[in-house]
Amino acid sequence: MKKHNFSPGPAILPASVLEEAAQAVSDFNGMGLSLLEISHRSAAFTAVMEEAVASVNELLDLDDDYSVLFLSGGASSQFFMTAMNLLNEGETACYADTGTWASKAIKEAKLFGTIEVIASSKDKNYSYIPRGWKVPAYAKYLHITTNNTIFGTQYHWLPESDAPIVADMSSDIFSRPIDGKNFGLIYAGAQKNLGPSGVTLVVVKKDLLGKVNRVLPSMLNYQTHIAENSLYNTPPVFPIYVSMLTMRWIKANGGLEGMEVINRRKAQLLYDEIDANPCFEGATVKEDRSLMNVTFLAKTPEWEAAFASAAKDAGCVEIKGHRSVGGFRASIYNAMPIESVQVLVDVMRDFAQKNG
Amino acid sequence: MKKHNFSPGPAILPASVLEEAAQAVSDFNGMGLSLLEISHRSAAFTAVMEEAVASVNELLDLDDDYSVLFLSGGASSQFFMTAMNLLNEGETACYADTGTWASKAIKEAKLFGTIEVIASSKDKNYSYIPRGWKVPAYAKYLHITTNNTIFGTQYHWLPESDAPIVADMSSDIFSRPIDGKNFGLIYAGAQKNLGPSGVTLVVVKKDLLGKVNRVLPSMLNYQTHIAENSLYNTPPVFPIYVSMLTMRWIKANGGLEGMEVINRRKAQLLYDEIDANPCFEGATVKEDRSLMNVTFLAKTPEWEAAFASAAKDAGCVEIKGHRSVGGFRASIYNAMPIESVQVLVDVMRDFAQKNG
Repeated sequence: MKKHNFSPGPAILPASVLEEAAQAVSDFNGMGLSLLEISHRSAAFTAVMEEAVASVNELLDLDDDYSVLFLSGGASSQFFMTAMNLLNEGETACYADTGTWASKAIKEAKLFGTIEVIASSKDKNYSYIPRGWKVPAYAKYLHITTNNTIFGTQYHWLPESDAPIVADMSSDIFSRPIDGKNFGLIYAGAQKNLGPSGVTLVVVKKDLLGKVNRVLPSMLNYQTHIAENSLYNTPPVFPIYVSMLTMRWIKANGGLEGMEVINRRKAQLLYDEIDANPCFEGATVKEDRSLMNVTFLAKTPEWEAAFASAAKDAGCVEIKGHRSVGGFRASIYNAMPIESVQVLVDVMRDFAQKNG
Repeated sequence: MKKHNFSPGPAILPASVLEEAAQAVSDFNGMGLSLLEISHRSAAFTAVMEEAVASVNELLDLDDDYSVLFLSGGASSQFFMTAMNLLNEGETACYADTGTWASKAIKEAKLFGTIEVIASSKDKNYSYIPRGWKVPAYAKYLHITTNNTIFGTQYHWLPESDAPIVADMSSDIFSRPIDGKNFGLIYAGAQKNLGPSGVTLVVVKKDLLGKVNRVLPSMLNYQTHIAENSLYNTPPVFPIYVSMLTMRWIKANGGLEGMEVINRRKAQLLYDEIDANPCFEGATVKEDRSLMNVTFLAKTPEWEAAFASAAKDAGCVEIKGHRSVGGFRASIYNAMPIESVQVLVDVMRDFAQKNG
């Protein structure tokens, strides 16, 4: 039976990307060698890295003020590296607390300067994106989490800020057009919309760097990686390659504009069913609903258990909600075909007819 | 034409491992999903991680005093993480400087305490392993690099030390039997003998941890990863899987004893030819020759250029020496078949007959 993979991450990747990636593990570009066993300084991998960087520049409409890096350590390492590289002791950075990952970013940043949480939706279990907040003039930067994977909320607007915006886009990077030049730093663990786990995209405006007093280990200094084009040490070759293939797929499928059109269509299909279906309700306020992670609750505990089983029987896997929210979460990243969303919607409709 | 891959890293992996890895990218364990798109908390990946950890415990003969971690960031991140986690300001750690990577470890460790270089072979371009040094009683730990990938030297003895030994084994881990319990901490970037790039093995004696005063970001604290069994954040799933397969292959091929037997045979075949051949000479002292990275020089610049070309014509790739040494370097890790070494030896013999 075909599986419909609603995993929040590591998550679904385009079938054609997986096919090419498998081929590269066997024999890369007809070289007679696996991609896994060639030097990261070989011409073949240099071409991969160059295409990956060029694709990010193109998709985010960046200019020469920015550097594109492929690092390891996940977004969890960026939680502290951003503050470590951008904030001196005694300086203040502002954070919006919109969920678990934002809270972790706040916790780690506090080791390196003063962190002011200027907006939070913790009061209602992160079911909305706070509005009406101002970034004070003394802020060194503003940190936001553009999409909250666990809670299913997403910014559909860009906060006004004179300070550079540092954005964790792990779960919605490349899902819609953005102008990268509106940000001081963007980071994203690859394993949702970009590639497999094991690589982290960092886009940074170069003039923000080199201004902290502390001594940084080489590997924790963005400038090290900029100077060496992400090849200061052996990079995660395979995850970078798969990310490059995924960006090639995005560009061949309408670019970010194309992704947004289909992502809106998929999300609307599912949210419309949630709103119409007597057995379910959405887990967030409507205006902040995520196009990537659709969270919803069954109206009775019996229905929750029964629907989990019905979805599984239809091949819909990984739809259990995070324990912080409960219920269900359908992650419908770029690579998720609308046909799979339709299967889930059909199961919900069928469930309501039998139980609702 | 068949390629004989002498790359220093990322490096050759067993053909059967590459085949299984390619299959897992297409469809993992018949799940109908790629390994790249399943949750790191799924039962399927949990089994992979558990087997990987169990294999390390078995191969290194560890006991419950040790934890086995699969981290990201490469050995380059361990250069500073070891000191950051083990050494307080004002305390002293001792280092043996046996090459480029040892020097980098020294440089990064200096950010966190007093580093005393108690042995060095820098005077002769790292062509030998220094002997006759003593570790002072005040040393918090001794750091060594067991195999020097660039220069082609290797420790064939274990330094006497009352202080715990911290060892960078990136390029000779699992190439010969060792008792892991002789070490306080072992680290190894995977991309030589263990797997593809993108994951780093760390083995640490737990009672050495938790003794530094500095505040550590969560991701840089070994105790974070120990508490979460390397799943504090999303780990590099695919590199860990391939490493697990490689260890399975090692165990099915005689374990570390079996690896050593064949590694010695391969190295002897090549070193014997270097010593007998009128066109070449070894680049290191004989008693410290590496079983993993065989460095040798052509006796004239003309021969160097001509032999590079002859080797390439025979399908022997990536044998150019590092610029710090020049000449040639044949990396003959675990997965390199003796038949490929024989091909290189045959090219050398043939070359001498024509030119010597």
